[in-house]
Amino acid sequence: MQEYRREALRWLAEEYHDLNGTQYDVLEDFPTPLEFSRMVHISRPILMRGSAIPSLSDAAAWSKPWLADKMGDRDISVAVTPNGRADAVTRGPDNKLYFAEPLTQKMSVQALLRSLSSDGPPAADASQDARTSQAEVHYLQSQNGNLFSNRYYELRGDSEDPSEFEPLREYIPSEISWCSDALDRNPDAVNLWIGDEKSVTSIHSDPYENIYTVLRGSKQFTLLPPTEGWCLKERRYPHATYVRSPVTSQLELVPSPAETPLVRWSSVTDPTDPTALPAEAHPIHITVNAGETLYLPAGWWHYVCQRGFTVAVNYWYDMEGRGMSWVWLNFLRDTEEPPLGNGEDEPEGGEKE
Amino acid sequence: MQEYRREALRWLAEEYHDLNGTQYDVLEDFPTPLEFSRMVHISRPILMRGSAIPSLSDAAAWSKPWLADKMGDRDISVAVTPNGRADAVTRGPDNKLYFAEPLTQKMSVQALLRSLSSDGPPAADASQDARTSQAEVHYLQSQNGNLFSNRYYELRGDSEDPSEFEPLREYIPSEISWCSDALDRNPDAVNLWIGDEKSVTSIHSDPYENIYTVLRGSKQFTLLPPTEGWCLKERRYPHATYVRSPVTSQLELVPSPAETPLVRWSSVTDPTDPTALPAEAHPIHITVNAGETLYLPAGWWHYVCQRGFTVAVNYWYDMEGRGMSWVWLNFLRDTEEPPLGNGEDEPEGGEKE
Ligand SMILES: O=C(O)CCC(=O)C(=O)O
Ligand SMILES: O=C(O)CCC(=O)C(=O)O
Repeated sequence: MQEYRREALRWLAEEYHDLNGTQYDVLEDFPTPLEFSRMVHISRPILMRGSAIPSLSDAAAWSKPWLADKMGDRDISVAVTPNGRADAVTRGPDNKLYFAEPLTQKMSVQALLRSLSSDGPPAADASQDARTSQAEVHYLQSQNGNLFSNRYYELRGDSEDPSEFEPLREYIPSEISWCSDALDRNPDAVNLWIGDEKSVTSIHSDPYENIYTVLRGSKQFTLLPPTEGWCLKERRYPHATYVRSPVTSQLELVPSPAETPLVRWSSVTDPTDPTALPAEAHPIHITVNAGETLYLPAGWWHYVCQRGFTVAVNYWYDMEGRGMSWVWLNFLRDTEEPPLGNGEDEPEGGEKE
Repeated sequence: MQEYRREALRWLAEEYHDLNGTQYDVLEDFPTPLEFSRMVHISRPILMRGSAIPSLSDAAAWSKPWLADKMGDRDISVAVTPNGRADAVTRGPDNKLYFAEPLTQKMSVQALLRSLSSDGPPAADASQDARTSQAEVHYLQSQNGNLFSNRYYELRGDSEDPSEFEPLREYIPSEISWCSDALDRNPDAVNLWIGDEKSVTSIHSDPYENIYTVLRGSKQFTLLPPTEGWCLKERRYPHATYVRSPVTSQLELVPSPAETPLVRWSSVTDPTDPTALPAEAHPIHITVNAGETLYLPAGWWHYVCQRGFTVAVNYWYDMEGRGMSWVWLNFLRDTEEPPLGNGEDEPEGGEKE
């Protein structure tokens, strides 16, 4: 049974790849709602050469000084880790692997910006500099609708959906009309991302149609179709969170209580490493530069790096739940519990890969 | 392996049904291209209360006398069977089951119309009358683009795509704009269907988005989603064709040469019979009356009956081949050869269900 499942997944991945290859479309103009509706049905990534955020006459818009000026001394919630890997599989002090959540720390925008690489193309050794110059990595990646959450659309008002980034709202549309029209719904969340090359986002998939615009810097996406999820060797990991030790003020990874459910996550740390994936995986590499937009279809696996100081905004729209798509994504992901991530299964011989 | 496959198909059918149920939408107006594009993505049947064929001021349009008048004494190609079951599994004189193709016979429209039940609602015993009054059943079901084939769109002209129903072309649009716009393509075929309750179409699925309008009479569709195809117990049958014996002038079912590939077809003859399907099947019954249109999504299984004299036109559009849909339909159907239809497999014990 295990074996047929593996065979079925292999068959689906191969057929899908034979039919679709790894190329992706590049559009010079945004699609109409009808065109985008067809694209959602096809569900392939598309790079669009345009920003979903209207460009401002001020050339300094979205730079560090501009952001600092607009935001003033407000506090925002920033993910803090020792290694730039928030929400990722990480080895704990006990040598066990954990799914590690970052410490969420309130700090001023100024403090965040100071900790990030400088704006503009990084110097050849900037990344090395940045990496060694500090013990903690900051990434604004709250992804809870930090610009607009679904409360905003339901209640139609800023007051009902307060945002830490309220001063930036006037520059950021609360929805993308061609996408909202195509999908016949409002976004579920609009998120601002501010970080640099010290942070990466580990490979995962979301049940959202994702419109991702880069405003400053650039992002490197490594994508796999839903059919190749099995190549990512998911495991179940105990949950842990970074906390700041009241004694040393250092970050410590603290395992969550034993009753906390295990987290299912890919055991592949760096899918850009050519040896990390089996031959059946066909990763697609797409760089999204400032002023460009990626359509990342629901269920696609993505790993995200960035170069230099990078600002981005993304729009998550709930995927269509009716019909087949949801069922298929569940079939590809959830019909079986993966093995434990710390190898405890192996002695039993039953669940190993 | 066989067993896991069965389990996987069962899981998919159940999840799909839990999520989608058996209800279908009924629209009072035709959709816009954008609305229809979303419907195609959801891929559920939809009944539309309107005719895709513009209605004519002549109330007699599409009646027998009207058709006879328009068509004159032209010959058309009609499917002839002894039992009204063209393209269906049928027991041959040797007691073996065959996939039987009809005799295709040229006859005048008058001859066809004379052999069909009378226009208008059938009398209580009309069907019985019709069934006993003649030994052969006629059904215009050529489904080769008998009104417009893809040559018509490619070559843009009547002369390059001759139709046996040329005089009717002026009443029938060569495409449906909301559908062509949604799918960004021309139809692959537009077919006229003329028959009565003596003919049924056996359950099968097509890789086409199908827009099916009834002009006279009514059609009863029995539909199953692609995920329930396994409930139809496909088998492989030898091919045979009805031919007219030069000696007796009677129809005879003649097996095709042994090298003719076996035909994969459902062994369920009448899916409207509640005992014919396993409990996991959830057939959807939709009656399409004159002046109504069914959207029958690609890959859906359909069995079709009709009441009284019935005229219909359908538009087949190639389904989207990119993305996942095609791969999934193949997974549901083609990953395994079904058993032989005449039970030859059973002694070996390997392939039986
Ligand atoms: O930009 C990133 O670091 C990650 C983006 C992401 O995961 C998403 O938009 O779903
Ligand atoms: O109307 C019928 O008898 C069958 C219709 C059909 O099979 C189709 O349109 O694909």
